Amino acid sequence: MHIVIAPDSFKESLNARHVAQAIEAGMAPILPHARFSQLPMADGGEGYAQSFLDQIGGERYHCEVTGPDFRPVTAEFVINREHRLAVIDVASASGLPLVPQDARNPRHTTSLGTGELIRAALDHDIDEIIIGLGGSATNDAGAGILTALGAKLLDGAGHPITPTGEGLGALMTIDLDTLDSRLKAVTLTAACDVDNPLCGPHGATTIFGPQKGGQEEDIRVLEQYLHRFASICHLQLGQSVCHFSGAGAAGGIGAALGGLLGARLEPGVDLLLSRTQARSLLANADWVITGEGRVDGQTQHGKVPAAIASIAQAYQIPVVVLAGSVGDDCEALYQQGVTAIFPIQAGPCELSDALMNSKKNLIRTSENIARMIRLSSHRPTTA
Amino acid sequence: MHIVIAPDSFKESLNARHVAQAIEAGMAPILPHARFSQLPMADGGEGYAQSFLDQIGGERYHCEVTGPDFRPVTAEFVINREHRLAVIDVASASGLPLVPQDARNPRHTTSLGTGELIRAALDHDIDEIIIGLGGSATNDAGAGILTALGAKLLDGAGHPITPTGEGLGALMTIDLDTLDSRLKAVTLTAACDVDNPLCGPHGATTIFGPQKGGQEEDIRVLEQYLHRFASICHLQLGQSVCHFSGAGAAGGIGAALGGLLGARLEPGVDLLLSRTQARSLLANADWVITGEGRVDGQTQHGKVPAAIASIAQAYQIPVVVLAGSVGDDCEALYQQGVTAIFPIQAGPCELSDALMNSKKNLIRTSENIARMIRLSSHRPTTA
Repeated sequence: MHIVIAPDSFKESLNARHVAQAIEAGMAPILPHARFSQLPMADGGEGYAQSFLDQIGGERYHCEVTGPDFRPVTAEFVINREHRLAVIDVASASGLPLVPQDARNPRHTTSLGTGELIRAALDHDIDEIIIGLGGSATNDAGAGILTALGAKLLDGAGHPITPTGEGLGALMTIDLDTLDSRLKAVTLTAACDVDNPLCGPHGATTIFGPQKGGQEEDIRVLEQYLHRFASICHLQLGQSVCHFSGAGAAGGIGAALGGLLGARLEPGVDLLLSRTQARSLLANADWVITGEGRVDGQTQHGKVPAAIASIAQAYQIPVVVLAGSVGDDCEALYQQGVTAIFPIQAGPCELSDALMNSKKNLIRTSENIARMIRLSSHRPTTA
Repeated sequence: MHIVIAPDSFKESLNARHVAQAIEAGMAPILPHARFSQLPMADGGEGYAQSFLDQIGGERYHCEVTGPDFRPVTAEFVINREHRLAVIDVASASGLPLVPQDARNPRHTTSLGTGELIRAALDHDIDEIIIGLGGSATNDAGAGILTALGAKLLDGAGHPITPTGEGLGALMTIDLDTLDSRLKAVTLTAACDVDNPLCGPHGATTIFGPQKGGQEEDIRVLEQYLHRFASICHLQLGQSVCHFSGAGAAGGIGAALGGLLGARLEPGVDLLLSRTQARSLLANADWVITGEGRVDGQTQHGKVPAAIASIAQAYQIPVVVLAGSVGDDCEALYQQGVTAIFPIQAGPCELSDALMNSKKNLIRTSENIARMIRLSSHRPTTA
């Protein structure tokens, strides 16, 4: 029996690799003859580069860059020489957790650090840079990235704007001629965990601004400045950056990468699956175990469990989903190929205890699922 | 496919029948061709008479009796004419929930009401009275029951003692000659949910006194008075009431029933199983679903899930246990025939929410278990 374990991370608790390890730790003693394949997954947010590292190997590089609030941070990226590939998380250089909780405000954050990471990656002998969008603290439409990569974003007096959400309010001119020329030699691919457009009621600011610390007035102002950015891109560069799917990812970094730097935008899970052995491992599984910290009505929209289930369904492979918590509206997931969903809590408990006990609860739940699987392999019953 | 649903109640939340109904409600839509048998179970405590009613039918009778704190309460018992059987819960007339939380003290509570219920049952044309011990507020060694049934429990001056734990301190003489003569014509059977002796470190007072509101000094005094009761039984009546298994059930009611009234004491689950069709239904099941509010290391000691699993194991039938909360030390249950244990909480939550959402969580969990079962019946995999 071949069991593929392909979970996302359990946010604030365990990364995807540790989740996969806990699941195998629970199942292996019950199914001693089973073969296990661990495929730690990510949808484009935090941990995306790590998932590539886990699945195809590579080396991790660290460098000091400009953090989202302009204080220096040590960020990292992954280089896989064999595939001539760099993988960068926006979250690593420009992530929300890098800003103290009480100082979060998307008007004043920048994606400069992510641009500096891209520049550092260009120092390596690579053909492609994959950038995981998601988990950013920013709402600057990638102004920081563009600036770090040599573009000129200028105000009415010809001075460089501050590359923040707020700074876009002074933007008059964008000049891409001065971009780092090495960009021409690499393919940029952006992994999106959301499909929102740049502006409007489903845009970056309205949907994600509040969770980045934006108050009502901030949201109103930032929405206006993103419109301004989009208009300038359209008028001066002939580029439409507003409406395509994923333009609103990572506070509009999707717009800059896709609209101005020629990046291809792909759903993060699909991209990861297409670049690794995951798909062929999944095709040869007898059972697939996946999971995520929270499973609910949102999960069906391209989250890891849904994407994994869709593949498994094509091969008629049963899929069990483990979750720290389960919402009410999971019906669509069953249609997408999920066999069963099991929350892992042992009983009523506080969130803090739940986060602390994730590993233990994953092991216990996985053990019991293995007991059900063992039974089904030993004892075909009559329907 | 035949699925037997045989759960205990989820205490403070759902009775056993409602638990069974919720489980079937979750499973039936997924397994539309399955046949379901609901066997609401109880181990001797609250709901024991109801389980007989649910499983073999009968009529419920109400009567006003003396409550555990001497205030009147309306209690009930079940008569099954076909089996010429009465079933009485100690909890119905003398249960802990009948005493306000801040007034609970096992020195001052009485089992009089249970004796009055037995007397009322004797008005019916029956051959046997089954008394479910468990859930009592009392520590009176059944002094109340004996008194209500006509026995004379007298102090040194020849006056009747107050039939409470405290009252036993004045006991000098027990006279059983004046017992209700109708008792001779019926079999008394006591259903125990515990196997504790009357006295000593594992006795009624030490183990259960504190949860009935006894403070350290109360426990010390009550333990001494139970010893006194046991000595008088031994010296005057030649009866040993102290050491047999179950003598300590329901604050020593087991001692009075078993030692002085000739009752046979049996583990409650076994008794229920032996008097109903449960055993033959279980023997013909393809799957058994059981459960209890809390499943942990104690469950193996004759609780409903363990007893049900033991029977199912004899027929090699898989058993799934559902629980409101699951403890760490469940290994023995797997040895006893449990296939898998699943807690039902959807995520971190407060106890009060868990109790309120039991039905919904049972339905959701059962649905997912049914999805696993459906798979195992459709798709034998290779081990």
